Amino acid sequence: MQAQKLFPGVYRLSFGEPETFTPETFRSVAPSAALKNCEELPCPFAQDAIAFRASARGCVAELPLDSFEQLYGFGLQLKSFAQMGKKKALRVNADPVADTGDSHAPVPFYVSTSGYGVLAESARQVSFYCGANEKLGAGGRTVTVEIPAARGISLVLFAGKDPLDVVRRYNLFSGGGAMPPAWGLGVWYRCYGQSAQADAEGFAREFRAHRLPVTVLGLEPGWHTRAYSCSYIWNEKNFPDHETFLARMKELGYQINLWEHIFVHPEAEIYDALKPYAGEYEVFQRGLIPDVSLPEARDIFADHHYERFVSQGISGFKLDECDGSDYTGGWSYPDCARFPSGLDGEQMHALIGLLYQNTVRQAFAPAGKRTWGLVRASGALASPSPFTLYSDLYDHRDFIRGLANMGFSGLLWTPEVRSAASAEDLVRRIQTVIFSPVAMVNAWPFPNPPWHQVDEALNHQGIRMEGSEALEARCRRWFELRMELLPYLYTAFRRYRDEGIPPVRALLLDDPADEDCWTVENAVLVGDALYFAPLVAGERERAFYLPRGTWVNFFDDSQFLEGGREYRFAYDLDAFPLYVKAGTLLPLAKAEQSVAEHPLFTLCPRSFGAKPGETLSYVLYEDDGASEGQTGGEVTLTRQADGTYALSRTGETGHQMYRLAEEKAD
Amino acid sequence: MQAQKLFPGVYRLSFGEPETFTPETFRSVAPSAALKNCEELPCPFAQDAIAFRASARGCVAELPLDSFEQLYGFGLQLKSFAQMGKKKALRVNADPVADTGDSHAPVPFYVSTSGYGVLAESARQVSFYCGANEKLGAGGRTVTVEIPAARGISLVLFAGKDPLDVVRRYNLFSGGGAMPPAWGLGVWYRCYGQSAQADAEGFAREFRAHRLPVTVLGLEPGWHTRAYSCSYIWNEKNFPDHETFLARMKELGYQINLWEHIFVHPEAEIYDALKPYAGEYEVFQRGLIPDVSLPEARDIFADHHYERFVSQGISGFKLDECDGSDYTGGWSYPDCARFPSGLDGEQMHALIGLLYQNTVRQAFAPAGKRTWGLVRASGALASPSPFTLYSDLYDHRDFIRGLANMGFSGLLWTPEVRSAASAEDLVRRIQTVIFSPVAMVNAWPFPNPPWHQVDEALNHQGIRMEGSEALEARCRRWFELRMELLPYLYTAFRRYRDEGIPPVRALLLDDPADEDCWTVENAVLVGDALYFAPLVAGERERAFYLPRGTWVNFFDDSQFLEGGREYRFAYDLDAFPLYVKAGTLLPLAKAEQSVAEHPLFTLCPRSFGAKPGETLSYVLYEDDGASEGQTGGEVTLTRQADGTYALSRTGETGHQMYRLAEEKAD
Repeated sequence: MQAQKLFPGVYRLSFGEPETFTPETFRSVAPSAALKNCEELPCPFAQDAIAFRASARGCVAELPLDSFEQLYGFGLQLKSFAQMGKKKALRVNADPVADTGDSHAPVPFYVSTSGYGVLAESARQVSFYCGANEKLGAGGRTVTVEIPAARGISLVLFAGKDPLDVVRRYNLFSGGGAMPPAWGLGVWYRCYGQSAQADAEGFAREFRAHRLPVTVLGLEPGWHTRAYSCSYIWNEKNFPDHETFLARMKELGYQINLWEHIFVHPEAEIYDALKPYAGEYEVFQRGLIPDVSLPEARDIFADHHYERFVSQGISGFKLDECDGSDYTGGWSYPDCARFPSGLDGEQMHALIGLLYQNTVRQAFAPAGKRTWGLVRASGALASPSPFTLYSDLYDHRDFIRGLANMGFSGLLWTPEVRSAASAEDLVRRIQTVIFSPVAMVNAWPFPNPPWHQVDEALNHQGIRMEGSEALEARCRRWFELRMELLPYLYTAFRRYRDEGIPPVRALLLDDPADEDCWTVENAVLVGDALYFAPLVAGERERAFYLPRGTWVNFFDDSQFLEGGREYRFAYDLDAFPLYVKAGTLLPLAKAEQSVAEHPLFTLCPRSFGAKPGETLSYVLYEDDGASEGQTGGEVTLTRQADGTYALSRTGETGHQMYRLAEEKAD
Repeated sequence: MQAQKLFPGVYRLSFGEPETFTPETFRSVAPSAALKNCEELPCPFAQDAIAFRASARGCVAELPLDSFEQLYGFGLQLKSFAQMGKKKALRVNADPVADTGDSHAPVPFYVSTSGYGVLAESARQVSFYCGANEKLGAGGRTVTVEIPAARGISLVLFAGKDPLDVVRRYNLFSGGGAMPPAWGLGVWYRCYGQSAQADAEGFAREFRAHRLPVTVLGLEPGWHTRAYSCSYIWNEKNFPDHETFLARMKELGYQINLWEHIFVHPEAEIYDALKPYAGEYEVFQRGLIPDVSLPEARDIFADHHYERFVSQGISGFKLDECDGSDYTGGWSYPDCARFPSGLDGEQMHALIGLLYQNTVRQAFAPAGKRTWGLVRASGALASPSPFTLYSDLYDHRDFIRGLANMGFSGLLWTPEVRSAASAEDLVRRIQTVIFSPVAMVNAWPFPNPPWHQVDEALNHQGIRMEGSEALEARCRRWFELRMELLPYLYTAFRRYRDEGIPPVRALLLDDPADEDCWTVENAVLVGDALYFAPLVAGERERAFYLPRGTWVNFFDDSQFLEGGREYRFAYDLDAFPLYVKAGTLLPLAKAEQSVAEHPLFTLCPRSFGAKPGETLSYVLYEDDGASEGQTGGEVTLTRQADGTYALSRTGETGHQMYRLAEEKAD
């Protein structure tokens, strides 16, 4: 077979009959134009190096492996990082209990340290045997890819100068990275699930009074109380006047995010209209499953959500339950379920996460606004989608591993803070989440903020824990750090959008030649210049591998470390390894109480490791912070030789997102 | 479609192209002749009541459900009992971590309280959705059966007067139940895995000296020490003279069982001969996978085992590792692996457990002897196979649930005692295991018997725990009870062989009209007359549901209970609910130190609930206790009106397995 060139360094190799329904079939964003400007590279596999065959079970491809390479990816794998030697059976699953390949966001894509990537174009439960077995007598290992039920296999092969270049091309092929509205990068707080509008307003006012810089409030409108399927109708008892409530929240500087799922209760206004476009089974007590692979179903759902919610000022949604789980009794629809589009349940499970995201994103199109939301399932080609994954699992180390893994497969992940075994646990988890795409406290189980009381039962009784004020101060400090990082993060996302570079990623992507980085799953790079290694509760010290180069301690910029080796230091609760690349001008902002829809950040830059008299600069991205489809412009922040800062625009961007704080020198 | 009648009350319904390889393809035992004598019953499903369809994924059958029925079976499910409302995806797996259907012995067979059973004739990973989902708008539930990769479905439908009648027909269709050699029902002790022959002899002599009635010793011959694949060559360092050793063990009244698995090391004598009949992959460091679906491979393996082991007096084997696990890294061969027979890896995983059992059983044929062994994987149609399942899982409640579940699908199960968190845990587990098909202490990790010391580290240091002598006495007591029950158990197995009635089974099988029995998963019936409800460590009392009828406490035959209700009593460590059906003459035997190859049991009968002057009798089964293919005969034990006992043979059985202890009256 001859590989077909799609874009520079991107090839398709097909065998047998192509599958009818793949993630590509339903892509809502075209490959990024930037892909055409990538360097030309040959196909990473020689002709006929990949063996194909069909069997009763489906189709198999065998891809040769070098004696020395490591593999990453397969979507949001929470249980493992380096995948060589493992079997990964990719199945959409909310509750992976072991390192099987189950994930709520599996992606049949992997990237090798040898500088290539492979995407199996399928919405089926693809299995990858990553050099796990030797052939009898023959020696030599392969990645064996099996696609069930398929009569053919189509692989997209990505070449690259290095793994990051491969990941970039995968993300650009997917349509580029998602660009958040600026407010989406603020701090999120999901209110107690039973909150009535007065309760929610209570949280909103408390956060302002206590100078806790929360920007997004998450709510449950109570539309799942009659049955667990959704009516998408505000519960009148809890929200007797949601319009006034929303207006007040806006005044206080909050964006509102609403919980929902896709299984439609008969009371929903859209139920009858969706019925011709529904799957054959019900889920969650009479919930209809809209076949959102059909434009008709997407339009009904999106139009309704625009009219009822987006046009009312709702900024986003939390899309729950769209994964399914075989470990908690097999709720959700069977894999053999039939849908009007011709999709079966297996394919729908793989696709519905992203299709649902696309449907909800479509609801924001008439408003011309970006959204930033949460979702519990995703899949291949998801990088342009403005939704961040969360999980009902909760192991902190697994959650940190998620940060290291998300960047390999075009996914965004929040290690949300949902509960805490102790004050220490709460703080350590908040320190982690502020370096993720959504800095979220999901206090759904707690009638009072968790920094009042981490014990759920006592929290329900309104009993404050000892030291709760100091704890709140600690939480405030990390929320403020998040707010300070916003210009930096916003600019990192711009690189995700335009260049496909993940804003949070594993160390090896930036230095694949350093094999010591290959297995580091408990530290990440955030943007261009930040290295972050979180601690978990119970740790008084930690070892961390620092990549090569010179690094400056964020908390003490007189402390320099040479990377390329492991360090081990003790940390109190107010510290953790956070390092800045030496020679970085970090465009920190003044921490405001919330992020405005069209923000104007006050920059308080800090330079790390600047030599006396050295000029440093940082190019920030600027647009109006909220509108869809903007290209924006660049603003150069400079630390001048005399230690003063300056801001300059290359041409007119049409916006003003940044200003300098009162002139100050280092 | 018209169901085809196979036997009275047994029908086959086929749709589409039949699968080439099913458990039936490889059955080694024909359906029992007794099946022909079963009552004629109509097909349990009306014509066209079952809907079939084919899809790209495979084939689907939808079987209607009554509004009120409960389902059981699907093989050795350790995580659940009553299966209505659940998805069971049947996959061979050593380490099921949740209630998914994964099992090391999945069987695509279920039985309904409505008095029918369904076997999906497939070696694929069949999924059963047991009324888990409602159809949109339609209401009504089905069992939806999906067979991947199949182009047709063949169902065997079993009618029955009640669920036990269904299970009987399933077992008789499988070829009848397995009949152990009498010694197989004695107490087993698997020695420390590193034991040299002197160590093993040490155990053997200690047990006799301490009057611990152990009959079978399990050993690891050390043929997996160079690589984890097996050479089937005694390790010369540990066993410099295994022939002398075996002779000494025989003198001491022990049977020897050897550990092995099926993945053949290149040093094995049979490696080259098996190579043309091997799967394409290696397992466990160069281990060849014999395709034991081929008679050639079975003959090579069986002939070798006869010559090297059976003819040397080895009585059986422990067949390890024949399952595979996706929860511990996916060791074993891929599901897409190819075998010379044409089987693929998925099918081989489903079949190899029973094929391996059949191969090893074949090694005993030239000796004309029964074997009784252990195995870690099994499947459909397994009831005639003389192997009992064990598991590397270890939750005591799960293990008890295994006893309740084994009888639904023609399987035997031992809740082996492998380690214990405390003396209490050890005793409670021993109390459980003596009511199972193999009363096994698997002290593989312990250089000294666990009743010396349950803590593994201290056991290795030879440090005895406090009260170890009292603990040993407790263990002895329960081992002796097992020995006393042997005539009763042997006779129960005869009913398994000839009538298909499981020797250990869930309560509901004997009284399906009592709905309170439907969910009892923590108590079982053993044989015709014994009710057993174990306690687990930490329990000082337990509630137990006693089936309808009058029951007599085994430990205090003056205490009668009326069943049909739940009781809750306190228990010290020497007691648990063990009840005998009122009016039973229990043929207990004197507890000897071991079970001879051709045993002569000394009966010490006890009658439970006999009215004064009442005559009771019990019909025992008798043969030579060890030879294959015997039909044996019956011996009637009678408690005469004067309270004395008598033994009478109906015709000449040609054997003498029982004698009465010195005449004694009640």
